[in-house]
Amino acid sequence: MRAEILSIGTEILFGEIVDTNAAFIASRLPGFGVDLLYVSQVGDNAARLAEVIERAWGRSEIVFATGGLGPTEDDITRETVAATLGEALYVDAAQEAHLREWFAGRGRPFVERNLKQAQLIPSARAIPNPRGTAPGWWVERDGKVFVLMPGPPAEMTYMWEHEIEPELERRADSVLVARTLKTLGLGEGLVDEMLSPLLAGTNPSIGIYARRDGVHARIAAKARTREEAWRLVAPVEVEARRILGDAIWGIDDDTLAGGIGRTLAARGLTVAVMESATGGAIADALTSDDGSSTYFLGGLVTYATAAKIALGVPADIVATHGVYSREVAEAMAHAARQRLGADLGVGLTGIAGSADLEGQPPGTMHIAVTDGARTTYHHSAFYQGRDAAKRRAVTEALSLLRGFLMGEDETQ
Amino acid sequence: MRAEILSIGTEILFGEIVDTNAAFIASRLPGFGVDLLYVSQVGDNAARLAEVIERAWGRSEIVFATGGLGPTEDDITRETVAATLGEALYVDAAQEAHLREWFAGRGRPFVERNLKQAQLIPSARAIPNPRGTAPGWWVERDGKVFVLMPGPPAEMTYMWEHEIEPELERRADSVLVARTLKTLGLGEGLVDEMLSPLLAGTNPSIGIYARRDGVHARIAAKARTREEAWRLVAPVEVEARRILGDAIWGIDDDTLAGGIGRTLAARGLTVAVMESATGGAIADALTSDDGSSTYFLGGLVTYATAAKIALGVPADIVATHGVYSREVAEAMAHAARQRLGADLGVGLTGIAGSADLEGQPPGTMHIAVTDGARTTYHHSAFYQGRDAAKRRAVTEALSLLRGFLMGEDETQ
Repeated sequence: MRAEILSIGTEILFGEIVDTNAAFIASRLPGFGVDLLYVSQVGDNAARLAEVIERAWGRSEIVFATGGLGPTEDDITRETVAATLGEALYVDAAQEAHLREWFAGRGRPFVERNLKQAQLIPSARAIPNPRGTAPGWWVERDGKVFVLMPGPPAEMTYMWEHEIEPELERRADSVLVARTLKTLGLGEGLVDEMLSPLLAGTNPSIGIYARRDGVHARIAAKARTREEAWRLVAPVEVEARRILGDAIWGIDDDTLAGGIGRTLAARGLTVAVMESATGGAIADALTSDDGSSTYFLGGLVTYATAAKIALGVPADIVATHGVYSREVAEAMAHAARQRLGADLGVGLTGIAGSADLEGQPPGTMHIAVTDGARTTYHHSAFYQGRDAAKRRAVTEALSLLRGFLMGEDETQ
Repeated sequence: MRAEILSIGTEILFGEIVDTNAAFIASRLPGFGVDLLYVSQVGDNAARLAEVIERAWGRSEIVFATGGLGPTEDDITRETVAATLGEALYVDAAQEAHLREWFAGRGRPFVERNLKQAQLIPSARAIPNPRGTAPGWWVERDGKVFVLMPGPPAEMTYMWEHEIEPELERRADSVLVARTLKTLGLGEGLVDEMLSPLLAGTNPSIGIYARRDGVHARIAAKARTREEAWRLVAPVEVEARRILGDAIWGIDDDTLAGGIGRTLAARGLTVAVMESATGGAIADALTSDDGSSTYFLGGLVTYATAAKIALGVPADIVATHGVYSREVAEAMAHAARQRLGADLGVGLTGIAGSADLEGQPPGTMHIAVTDGARTTYHHSAFYQGRDAAKRRAVTEALSLLRGFLMGEDETQ
């Protein structure tokens, strides 16, 4: 099925908002065997909107449009689609009752222009929008489909998942399912080589992608039903898991911090952090998931050297080795662990700023993990700006912590 | 000038990447008096790319295209533009020399297919790309312009700022400049009412926008030159600053944390934080700017109750009032200040998870700021998911800290 997406709204053309709706829809379509051929963004100008809608209706089998369904004069998506299809708008009684109820339930006055949102055309049925006032439209005519959805992403994604996908699922001749295995510690080329015995097939196919949190292997299969597609993925996934082994830290939507959290929780271990250059971002990552209080005890953001010493880093280690050193990172890991009574401690000292400090370049990071008996260490120096340096250092600290939990001893 | 943007690349249609290039370009065009009418995304399919490029060249005066300039067979943007304009591609000697130098300088072998990237057509001149191998094209014919830029955002934005904008500046009949005043503590409606005496004019115009970090007032003026436009903005800005007074915490690209940092630095004050539900995110925000070590001493992420007590919150306060309370937030602010030797302490205790705890709902946040003598407090409870709750609480803590520095005493 040939699909097209239209994102409607002048605020997109001003660059005031990034069009995440189109990317969201685009990422979901392959799952239903739908081929996306075009995406267009257009403002609220009547003539240009009509031009874009006519072309889409002419060349595509299914069109997904978002935006322009509000109550104001600028919202002209319904009117334009009605005109393109040569159908008359009418106020649907059920939609009007629903709208009046919505406003009454919130104690807000119902003004007449809201009635716009209760309009339909003969070929359209209303799609419920429990997160807002404007229902969507599912238009079906001449073997083609035109779907209108509201622009606010919270409303659109809810409607997509609860109303649009079930409909696409019913109509799909084929579906695509995918399992992503997320790895750390192996390069993109190495993963490609290791999985090469599995790469020959086209269904399932395997894609290898380098991402900030490691290398991902995505196994995707197409079939007539979801069950059948998963049956194609399964043996390849088993084999890929065997080959990649402990390098796999998670699947699909898993995050690195989430994977570490599950491992810590399963083993009944707790962790504490003392960090400087990352300024609290490691602790922030480790508290991303519900239930993180079972394994994360606390963090010490010791930005000033005096704060490091006040919280347990021996002053003579700082004096002897300098504050940006392996020894201080290790002392921070020990201090975090002891001060907060955790099983594991993570320490990080480094330079997030853009100037050299004590002879070390911007982006320098010294990271250590310890359980009191065993200590591992990672060092890097790479700079693409302050925020990037902080984010990269968080990934490296989580990676070192995961390696520690896997029993890796060597300096990475 | 009627402009159009084309984002070229199949990975956009798969939803694997969000098209931030189009939003970046769109946000820059108003500054040069250029009207953006259409944005389209299209894959690497030859027929569809030709269709989209022909239409753009036909209907727009200036077309900005990104993507499809790489060395692979899938990269067909140059070929398609050449065909649309009916011009022949040739390998430009200067570009070839430059490319060979680039590869040699990095010790990489030069394969023949890289020569694609040295191609030009008679109407095109090469645009330097110091961040990558593919130069851009500036095509000019029949009074129209077609600009090709590489897809990787780091390459595109550099080329845009260093090569494209100076050219647009030279050609602009009019330019638009804008000053954004960022406020806190006033609602959108109130700012609108306060500035109403200034809202009548259309040049400069004033827009009022509610954002996560408060209400923004954007004063924009159009004129033939940048200087002239700023002369139009200036008196309105002076008046708006007089009206909004201390509610203004920053301008343009300023961040809330940056504004607080400048105030702290100017007064020679330091701050320390003890936070639980935000998990280090307040400290992370306060360390976003270079030079933050002059005012930020450190943070204590006391996720576990035992960690709060170990770091200075009196156990009896927790026992009497419960861990999610005004009293504990205040004790945390005092403990942070004392433990790290800072002038000011910020304390936050609350619930980032999705379940009620000790009779309080998800999203509950108790926040306090103290200098030892004076203490202010903020309480809120609003939940739209864990990450949103953390981010909102950071903004509220920074807002309370800013209010404290402005001398606000009342509970907000």
